[in-house]
Amino acid sequence: MTTQEQLIAVKAAKPALAAASTEQKNRALLAMADALLADAAPILAANQEDLDAARGTISEVMLDRLALNQARLEGMAEGMRQVAALPDPVGKVLARVERPNGIVVEKTAVPMGVVAIIYESRPNVTSDAAALAVKSGNACVLRCGKEAHRSAAAITAALRKGLAAAGLPEDGVCLIEDTTRVSSLALMTAVGYVDLLIPRGGAGLIRACVEQAKVPCIQTGTGICHVYVDAAADQAMALNIIENAKTSRPSVCNAEEVCLVHRAIAGEFLPKLRQRLVDDQIAKGRHPVELRLDERAAAIIPGTPAGPDDFDTEFLDYILAVKVVDSVDDAIAHIAAHSTGHSEAIVTADEAAARAFTTRVDSAAVYVNVSTRFTDGGEFGLGCEMGISTQKLHARGPMGLAELCSYKFIVHGNGQVR
Amino acid sequence: MTTQEQLIAVKAAKPALAAASTEQKNRALLAMADALLADAAPILAANQEDLDAARGTISEVMLDRLALNQARLEGMAEGMRQVAALPDPVGKVLARVERPNGIVVEKTAVPMGVVAIIYESRPNVTSDAAALAVKSGNACVLRCGKEAHRSAAAITAALRKGLAAAGLPEDGVCLIEDTTRVSSLALMTAVGYVDLLIPRGGAGLIRACVEQAKVPCIQTGTGICHVYVDAAADQAMALNIIENAKTSRPSVCNAEEVCLVHRAIAGEFLPKLRQRLVDDQIAKGRHPVELRLDERAAAIIPGTPAGPDDFDTEFLDYILAVKVVDSVDDAIAHIAAHSTGHSEAIVTADEAAARAFTTRVDSAAVYVNVSTRFTDGGEFGLGCEMGISTQKLHARGPMGLAELCSYKFIVHGNGQVR
Repeated sequence: MTTQEQLIAVKAAKPALAAASTEQKNRALLAMADALLADAAPILAANQEDLDAARGTISEVMLDRLALNQARLEGMAEGMRQVAALPDPVGKVLARVERPNGIVVEKTAVPMGVVAIIYESRPNVTSDAAALAVKSGNACVLRCGKEAHRSAAAITAALRKGLAAAGLPEDGVCLIEDTTRVSSLALMTAVGYVDLLIPRGGAGLIRACVEQAKVPCIQTGTGICHVYVDAAADQAMALNIIENAKTSRPSVCNAEEVCLVHRAIAGEFLPKLRQRLVDDQIAKGRHPVELRLDERAAAIIPGTPAGPDDFDTEFLDYILAVKVVDSVDDAIAHIAAHSTGHSEAIVTADEAAARAFTTRVDSAAVYVNVSTRFTDGGEFGLGCEMGISTQKLHARGPMGLAELCSYKFIVHGNGQVR
Repeated sequence: MTTQEQLIAVKAAKPALAAASTEQKNRALLAMADALLADAAPILAANQEDLDAARGTISEVMLDRLALNQARLEGMAEGMRQVAALPDPVGKVLARVERPNGIVVEKTAVPMGVVAIIYESRPNVTSDAAALAVKSGNACVLRCGKEAHRSAAAITAALRKGLAAAGLPEDGVCLIEDTTRVSSLALMTAVGYVDLLIPRGGAGLIRACVEQAKVPCIQTGTGICHVYVDAAADQAMALNIIENAKTSRPSVCNAEEVCLVHRAIAGEFLPKLRQRLVDDQIAKGRHPVELRLDERAAAIIPGTPAGPDDFDTEFLDYILAVKVVDSVDDAIAHIAAHSTGHSEAIVTADEAAARAFTTRVDSAAVYVNVSTRFTDGGEFGLGCEMGISTQKLHARGPMGLAELCSYKFIVHGNGQVR
């Protein structure tokens, strides 16, 4: 089918998804999870074809993201069952007012309609995104990177069987067949068909969406996250937080990329930082962190001199840019100039510094004495996550089921006129 | 100043507005209201120049919208005082969760940052929009149509004096000096400067923003509003609602443009409708409504045959398109195909029909036995209104102070790592 034909099909499925009861949606999700496991053989075979085709053309890390096995499939099915267990966001009355004239205004959560997700080479996003869309009453149209397309197609075929088993239209979950850029652009400009576009991927994809999208779009993901170690920091705590934020999973968007250190403690703290991130890591057989130092930091510890781009780069690797700052104000100003608005942390025992930081740093998540790695739907108690928004319109930070909904005002009366 | 220089200035004012206390913002709003009245003479003189220049080039209705006088200025000042009296949306904790690991996550309302408003020839929008922006902690950049530009410039000069009197930066409210299309396009594409763009005006402006905006944008306004008279309607109530929705103020976006009538009552109801909207209006010396009838309606009452565009036009005039439908499903399908998603009403005593209508009609406001004219921030209890969103992302329906805010997650802990 052409992309336009697929968009027409998914739009036609929209009212049935929007009107589905909680019970019916949950039944569909459990059937989709069952179908995923029942179709394990064709899904793993398709995944093997994807892996064979991709080998040599993409990195080992990317190959690992692409690879499925029985355990990963079971994890995906379990994820769908967990979404079934979450509360239904649709129909929730967000606010209610009875006016003096007797009209009753209820602001009520409703599905967005058709949610489009453009993603890259992680086949598991197929079932994750479809589960969240279905639970929130949305039809969804998925556009997967070509490396994972055979896997995603096999997964989607299973998910559609699950939808049908619960009496919902199969076209509630569609995978775009065209894997060229033409189909991405078609989704970005599908006014009247796509109610919300969520790009999940690298900076290039996000930028393309911001530049070209004519449908409502949410920027996700890019994270140049800062940890600022204040003069009044508990330095042992700061070392733990930075080690966690930088090394526990460097490839994710909530990992730390930049460390700012107050000049009053830089002479004492930076050698400890180097010990923890370099020497201790080597001693434990772990990957050491490359420190890219501004001039003042380089005067205190050895490391790579920071280049002009090092404070504006999402490394997603064992690399940390380090800068000495004069004050909390200086740290806030640096963050304002260089952050992507994802997650920033201050380590301090000074309440005034903490308050200045949380009030004035304009990012989705702002932490006091906590690792930036907690920016995640599960960790924030949302139960799930469709992505992490770095924009301010509609949704900011981790997006759960509520963020896949809009609302409408339902007004009851008995003949009121104005 | 160039538009770019003005954008730099307003961005520089953003932190001071965002950090201002409720008391300081209220003091600024009262001082802005006082300054508006203190500057009545230069404002009314500038308005006279605008009127003199515009006369002959725009309609009488537009001239009336453009005209200011002492009473209107007092109304504008009073509007600002009312905004000062509203609760401050900034800093409100929208949700709070303490996680098992001890971190406390607070989802906290914060200003958007810089809000841009592009509007046409109503000078009063200058003070309305500035008041709402300041109260919600936003700096604002205003881009007024050229017909009202002298008036808006004089008003803005007064408002900036008020800001300064309260110790806030004057550049928190900027009026773009360039009145050509170049400046509108500059605002639509001011990535990094404008956090939210709200176009307030005709369909052409809204369409241009949707097509060209690269900054987050909210579509407002266009309303092809439907009233559906069900088979089970109280017909006297239906006549009152339709008369109100169509004739109380035909030029506004929540006025009715289309009437759908169930075929079971069409033979009885349509003659009464014609009597009420045509004959009774003439008898009372009011403007009669021109009825544009589909074939089935035209077989029952006299009127203009509806042309191909009449069910897709926001008349904003004493014109009503009338169509006979077979069922509530048929009415819902017609609305899905032709509505702009603003406001629709059903008149019925049948609860099942009402429920089908409120559930399945996908518009910002859906009414049961109430006139569509109530879609308004004041009428919904928001206390004010920046515009009426017809999109589903971020804000839908009347936008008050809360809708001019985003949020961030503020997380406190004592060294938690993941």
